[in-house]
Amino acid sequence: MKLGVIPGDGIGIDVTAEALRVLDAVVPGVEKIEYDLGAARYRRTGEILPDSVLHEVRGHDAILLGAIGDPSVPPGVLERDLLLRLRFELDHYVNLRPAKLYPGVATPLTGRPEIDFIVYREGTEGPYTGNGGTLRRGTPNEVATEVSVNTAFGVERVVRAAFERAQSRPRKRLTLVHKTNVLKHAGGLWQRIVDAVSSEFPEVTVDYNHVDAVMIHLVTQPERYDVIVTDNLFGDIVTDLAGAICGGIGLAASANINPDRTAPSMFEPVHGSAPDIAGQDKADPTAAVLSVALMLEHLGDAEAAAKIETVVREDLARREPEKPGGTREIGERLAEAAATR
Amino acid sequence: MKLGVIPGDGIGIDVTAEALRVLDAVVPGVEKIEYDLGAARYRRTGEILPDSVLHEVRGHDAILLGAIGDPSVPPGVLERDLLLRLRFELDHYVNLRPAKLYPGVATPLTGRPEIDFIVYREGTEGPYTGNGGTLRRGTPNEVATEVSVNTAFGVERVVRAAFERAQSRPRKRLTLVHKTNVLKHAGGLWQRIVDAVSSEFPEVTVDYNHVDAVMIHLVTQPERYDVIVTDNLFGDIVTDLAGAICGGIGLAASANINPDRTAPSMFEPVHGSAPDIAGQDKADPTAAVLSVALMLEHLGDAEAAAKIETVVREDLARREPEKPGGTREIGERLAEAAATR
Ligand SMILES: CC(C)[C@H](C(=O)O)[C@@H](O)C(=O)O
Ligand SMILES: CC(C)[C@H](C(=O)O)[C@@H](O)C(=O)O
Repeated sequence: MKLGVIPGDGIGIDVTAEALRVLDAVVPGVEKIEYDLGAARYRRTGEILPDSVLHEVRGHDAILLGAIGDPSVPPGVLERDLLLRLRFELDHYVNLRPAKLYPGVATPLTGRPEIDFIVYREGTEGPYTGNGGTLRRGTPNEVATEVSVNTAFGVERVVRAAFERAQSRPRKRLTLVHKTNVLKHAGGLWQRIVDAVSSEFPEVTVDYNHVDAVMIHLVTQPERYDVIVTDNLFGDIVTDLAGAICGGIGLAASANINPDRTAPSMFEPVHGSAPDIAGQDKADPTAAVLSVALMLEHLGDAEAAAKIETVVREDLARREPEKPGGTREIGERLAEAAATR
Repeated sequence: MKLGVIPGDGIGIDVTAEALRVLDAVVPGVEKIEYDLGAARYRRTGEILPDSVLHEVRGHDAILLGAIGDPSVPPGVLERDLLLRLRFELDHYVNLRPAKLYPGVATPLTGRPEIDFIVYREGTEGPYTGNGGTLRRGTPNEVATEVSVNTAFGVERVVRAAFERAQSRPRKRLTLVHKTNVLKHAGGLWQRIVDAVSSEFPEVTVDYNHVDAVMIHLVTQPERYDVIVTDNLFGDIVTDLAGAICGGIGLAASANINPDRTAPSMFEPVHGSAPDIAGQDKADPTAAVLSVALMLEHLGDAEAAAKIETVVREDLARREPEKPGGTREIGERLAEAAATR
């Protein structure tokens, strides 16, 4: 197995080191090729994602990414031309984000609801395509547009993947999240495709929620969700709220998946590069470690993936809320527990 | 004063009756003209918002709206052709939504944060313009687009209104909410306009948050917000979460304002028509009552507005959490308290 590693910026570097430590403890001997993509390389060379690197990365079995973004680079540049470019070029059409409230983890919600759902966020189209533009930029008559592009091809493949997942889960529930009452063109397409695909999955109970209603449900009855399927932008918004109610995005893992395996999938914590605490041994590497578990599952090693999840679950249950430990301490603790398991 | 009243559908009818009861108690003798717009009229006549009605409504000093939407009408039809059409035709470019956690009100958040901010949601453009379309509808090659249209004219006027509000509040903080790292055309326009207008308001502290980060902040530290300014769709999403953390959208009021007063402004609770509990004396009319307070404030009667808010605040503090009372009971209680105050 050949793994491409992109630690990226800020705490991305800190947490990736620990994620790899845990990987090594569970699956020794994985070949890793590290890429110094991110703010430092951009400042040094002006390069963001050279075609040659993209080509090389394509040859790997998977990619592990830390986080992207640095105050020294104009906001959005690295996000779009590195992170989003990877997702689009490698056709990561399933952006999979589990939301699980582990025992012992503090949630900002009263009543400690049971939270255990998974979001299938479309990853290659919608409002993320970069379509649109500005006219008369900088004048009082400027017009700026953003075009959300949605194709039957693109929607169907992620909807189908979400149905397959729902089918395999005990509750077998799937909720489409959109804003069909306002965005009637895109919303209509999503709704029609969900309706069509649902006939192939008669055991799956299908539901629809407007994205604004999801905001309410997630803080009052998140237990209602099992599998959510949604577009790229709504998925971005919903999964940050999901992460927050499950104890913070320091614990939220994600997988950018190319289910057809025409290119490697990419695994990354949901959190950003948090430049303010970078290199200070403060970031929680748990989300990155759980992203490794998602990676192993995708690569067919369900046993190793389960081992990591168990070790994380046990560690979370034992952590002192105010003193979880530093980045390295948590990483070492998880690696040791995984090695002796 | 001439008030246009559109009770609309479902619980819209229930709560509007109580909102008017409280209005009458505070400002007796307001002339009210009721319009039977909504699902019933649509079913009966096929009409949604006849031009003649729109013309008549334009002549009023304000509009009070209950809620729109019914399962007998295809989803989105009334929302777009009645509610959104009113907002657009009457140029309600400020969709103002206060978020306040009143004493005694249960919030789903632990730790009972202090919540007191106000959202200036743009109301006449962005992804709500209905621009976009579908190509090859219903085929495997369908492409559906939604175009978010943002103009310097449209963004500047709501941004300026938000700055004025921030300037008048003790904390004088304004947060722009967008997704500039992905939506660079629209996001760039919003950011540049906020930067430009901020120079006219040197006392206002300006901040920027990505919409996904707002999800996290709203459940972990909502006290950080004072005035939020954002686009139509992000505003829709953020204000439902804001309503939920402030005790539910049964309490969330909103004002669709035309600050230039070229047409009447429109006041409505944030909640929908909740057909499942319509006509059962179950809906909480508080959001509609607070919308009347926003209306009176807009019409220059700050004293009457304050009276309603005080009465609501006191009632909320005294309510039994599990037994707030029926729609009518709450309305009568508030009206009586307001009359004797
Ligand atoms: C950094 C940003 C472009 C990215 C996104 O919007 O997808 C991030 O928020 C995420 O959720 O992975
Ligand atoms: C009903 C719908 C069109 C409306 C909106 O999206 O604006 C509602 O959600 C609101 O927030 O007032």
